[in-house]
Amino acid sequence: MTTTVAAYAAPAAKAPLERTTIERREVGEFDVLIDIKFAGICHSDIHQAREGWGEAIFPMVPGHEIAGVVSEVGSGVTKYRAGDRVGVGCMVDSCRECENCEAGLEQYCLKGNVGTYNALDKSGEPTYGGYSEKIVVDEAFVVRIPDGLALDVAAPLLCAGITTYSPLKHWNAGPGKKVAVLGFGGLGHMGVKIAHALGAEVTVLSQSLRKKDDGLRLGADHYYATSDPKTFDELRGSFDLILSTVSAPLDLDAFLSLLRTDGAFVNVGAPEEPVALNLFSVIGGRKTLAGSGIGGIRETQEMLDFCAEHGLGSEIELIDAAEINVAYERVLSSDVRYRFVIDTATI
Amino acid sequence: MTTTVAAYAAPAAKAPLERTTIERREVGEFDVLIDIKFAGICHSDIHQAREGWGEAIFPMVPGHEIAGVVSEVGSGVTKYRAGDRVGVGCMVDSCRECENCEAGLEQYCLKGNVGTYNALDKSGEPTYGGYSEKIVVDEAFVVRIPDGLALDVAAPLLCAGITTYSPLKHWNAGPGKKVAVLGFGGLGHMGVKIAHALGAEVTVLSQSLRKKDDGLRLGADHYYATSDPKTFDELRGSFDLILSTVSAPLDLDAFLSLLRTDGAFVNVGAPEEPVALNLFSVIGGRKTLAGSGIGGIRETQEMLDFCAEHGLGSEIELIDAAEINVAYERVLSSDVRYRFVIDTATI
Repeated sequence: MTTTVAAYAAPAAKAPLERTTIERREVGEFDVLIDIKFAGICHSDIHQAREGWGEAIFPMVPGHEIAGVVSEVGSGVTKYRAGDRVGVGCMVDSCRECENCEAGLEQYCLKGNVGTYNALDKSGEPTYGGYSEKIVVDEAFVVRIPDGLALDVAAPLLCAGITTYSPLKHWNAGPGKKVAVLGFGGLGHMGVKIAHALGAEVTVLSQSLRKKDDGLRLGADHYYATSDPKTFDELRGSFDLILSTVSAPLDLDAFLSLLRTDGAFVNVGAPEEPVALNLFSVIGGRKTLAGSGIGGIRETQEMLDFCAEHGLGSEIELIDAAEINVAYERVLSSDVRYRFVIDTATI
Repeated sequence: MTTTVAAYAAPAAKAPLERTTIERREVGEFDVLIDIKFAGICHSDIHQAREGWGEAIFPMVPGHEIAGVVSEVGSGVTKYRAGDRVGVGCMVDSCRECENCEAGLEQYCLKGNVGTYNALDKSGEPTYGGYSEKIVVDEAFVVRIPDGLALDVAAPLLCAGITTYSPLKHWNAGPGKKVAVLGFGGLGHMGVKIAHALGAEVTVLSQSLRKKDDGLRLGADHYYATSDPKTFDELRGSFDLILSTVSAPLDLDAFLSLLRTDGAFVNVGAPEEPVALNLFSVIGGRKTLAGSGIGGIRETQEMLDFCAEHGLGSEIELIDAAEINVAYERVLSSDVRYRFVIDTATI
């Protein structure tokens, strides 16, 4: 039997989100029913609700930064039981058979993973995200939130945390490495915290110095404004890794000039339009321009455990559900420190 | 005392090359005087002689694929003696002090290496390349050509060989790896030979199937035409590494779609104009777009030893010096199998 739950949904592309109800599927053999407590607002919620990344499925209940408590489990569930503190991120399923799924890289499932919202699940039904009271998810795509992390500041880790942790680990951020985080918003501030905890020397590259105090407080060793041309002279050839969290168009060649030999510029932000690149920018110094998308389920758990161990939660502004549309506008104008999180009790 | 030697030079940008004489410096303490026997014609000779890569120094004696025999050495030279078979590639000096030079990556010298031609040496004098009878080079930038390699087919290895060998090694081409070589010309045909000898499964991606027989004969396992849209469907998600040797503009997104998860598209060719890139092409599948420039001196020696061991020389068309200008036109129309090499006895 399905469960009717309250949710906030965009009824159509670019329309404001409004309160509605959706049906959650019956709790299957391997399913976990989660009482959602908090849901983060990710910039990609807005991209998708406004069809900035292409045609989308409506009504859309966004939200892929979900923290809650298990209230019921299916008969075959072994990992979780009622009362467990859990999270759900950007995926709720994948083929589980391809070489990437087998390698724990479900985010790169060769048949495409099933997004937490704006996707069709294996039975062809649309998925609905975290701006709602409850969600039913296969236990294989549920992660445990360690006791040391409060649920509200843990919610954004399910996207912003793993999206920055995974490439920082993959490109070996750590002691002796100079890491720049480009963009100091929802993703960027987690990138700074995590890179610092990993032991790297961390520089923030932000448009202005407006948030410099926050940056230094949250773990950055240095903070530069990209609007200042001197930044590019001073930092030329400096970084082993630049993690770009911005989704605005970029002067890639300028940023590649900031890398050391064998350095990598890794995009986790995603501009909607193509960018221009002079290939000499990578040939000189054997540089890498790469990308990374969230992280696998195993790595997401590893990230949560790491964040709990190091006391890393997201900096958040807790809001009521009725404030979602205003929050969207504020995200678009970079006016958030540093993640809006919906208190789902207010839905 | 300087030595006057005959050479072929471009007197000005885009002007035909003509016979002239140049002065070679006195053989210094650590210098080697080399009787040049053969000099390869690299596409980048043409880019530079025609100022396609920016302002250049004229008169220009191109040529950085040099094979010859030592005829005299300075008093401090320990590595070579008269009669030794040696080569000189794209560099004749570097700062020798920076971290890259210390790491054997002289090509990425932080102060800039000294090019074999179209550069100024440490005393401020212009350097002149291999289209000449003799050259004086510091022994640190001279490599030994093993007995197993004929000098004429060895000459192109000094650029085309190392430019492909270095990234193939760096990105782990070898058994179990699927490597595509994009472009089947001077660089591409060496890429195929070397990737095959390293044990990789090799696919040529060429504009047409015109040179397919050669490709398969020289070591490719597969050969596809990039002009056929079906190629992109069929090979989607196939390659661990694509080595791009082309200098024409590219549809990067299309080629990135041919990579497997964690695959790398590495440019050694260099279009003169910027290319467009959709960053989603690297985010999906954690892909890498990278570049690589020639190789260090130690690695160049390693490459020559590897080529000798595996019997890998370049496929060449030997020409007289008087044919250089015609050869340039043929290179530009991809009408060479696969490298023109000048018999410098004809200068």
